[in-house]
Amino acid sequence: MSVVTIERKVLEKNDEIASRNRELFRSHGIFAVNLVSSPGAGKTSLLERTLEHLRGKLPLAVIEGDVQTDLDARRIERYGVPAVQIVTRGGCHLEANLVRDALDAIPLGGVRLLIIENVGNLVCPSNYDLGEAMKIVLASTTEGDDKPLKYPAMFRNSSVLVINKIDLLPYLSCSLDTLRSNALQINPSLKVFQTSCRTGEGIDAWCEWLVSASSEERK
Amino acid sequence: MSVVTIERKVLEKNDEIASRNRELFRSHGIFAVNLVSSPGAGKTSLLERTLEHLRGKLPLAVIEGDVQTDLDARRIERYGVPAVQIVTRGGCHLEANLVRDALDAIPLGGVRLLIIENVGNLVCPSNYDLGEAMKIVLASTTEGDDKPLKYPAMFRNSSVLVINKIDLLPYLSCSLDTLRSNALQINPSLKVFQTSCRTGEGIDAWCEWLVSASSEERK
Repeated sequence: MSVVTIERKVLEKNDEIASRNRELFRSHGIFAVNLVSSPGAGKTSLLERTLEHLRGKLPLAVIEGDVQTDLDARRIERYGVPAVQIVTRGGCHLEANLVRDALDAIPLGGVRLLIIENVGNLVCPSNYDLGEAMKIVLASTTEGDDKPLKYPAMFRNSSVLVINKIDLLPYLSCSLDTLRSNALQINPSLKVFQTSCRTGEGIDAWCEWLVSASSEERK
Repeated sequence: MSVVTIERKVLEKNDEIASRNRELFRSHGIFAVNLVSSPGAGKTSLLERTLEHLRGKLPLAVIEGDVQTDLDARRIERYGVPAVQIVTRGGCHLEANLVRDALDAIPLGGVRLLIIENVGNLVCPSNYDLGEAMKIVLASTTEGDDKPLKYPAMFRNSSVLVINKIDLLPYLSCSLDTLRSNALQINPSLKVFQTSCRTGEGIDAWCEWLVSASSEERK
């Protein structure tokens, strides 16, 4: 049995479990998103700002994926939101079965929005469906404006792009216009937000969209 | 045959080819380094500053690894240095056979230093030996100071840490001391440099070390 055959079988098995996760989310009216980015692009910081804004307005839960440590889940728990940490112990992406197991620890009944923060990796998570309604890719301005061209699969497979750390633009050679147009060249249907978790700029618009998308999911 | 068995066989095959690459580097007196980091930490920018400094002083060659595009090799070629681009077409790391094939396009005779820039990924490249003398990991201050704890394998398997983008520290919540001590907690034998490719700070010390390490390799 070749490596390619094994890989296909692993992906097929993953897709089966992802479909069951998706069915579970639908049956509970949960809008589930898969948040992906490079390490340090600001996924957990965006989550923190999002929880500050949405706490009391939209019942939500978080699944944190990391190669090692439960630092992120501990950051999230401070906001009084159910948070489950998946530690992959070297694994470079989340898989649907890990998410399924994590769901056992979340009381799904009241949840409207589930944010799954994937392992920081701009390559591997693009291939793995977790059962989410959509992938949301974060790109930090500090990574430069060429990343959508160099890591196209992640931008092609995402529905939303959040350009984060826009407060740092004055100190960088990154062009926001180029980053945006490179991303739209790879995926013209991307919805784009621009945020700074430091100054709070753009967080209102992002959160309003999350609320509206979560309510769409229940129709 | 299980997935684990297949993975072990893939790694064994890779290690065999890596050993032959290593032998080839030794026989030519070439100091070969495997430069790894998250996407956008500044590997190519560090290479550019390094080439500016070492051009005419140390004969070197570059192998560029990217998921897609030859943007990086084109940046490097401007410096009149032999540069070969490996495009992995979705692959999340370089492997020893890709490096072996790329070496066919480099006249090894005169080369003293070979810098292999891996795919931007803080997880997968840590498992794959390319035949290098050592891995050098870049960490950007913009990624935050917790990354060594969250992605320990890369810091454990590297011999040198370059903390890049130190010019941005005044605008970040990243602590240089914490980043450094987290890295040394994972790997106490790491040699640490601090650089800014923007201001040039720290580039002299980094380049002096490269020259000295390359000359050690020929003893």
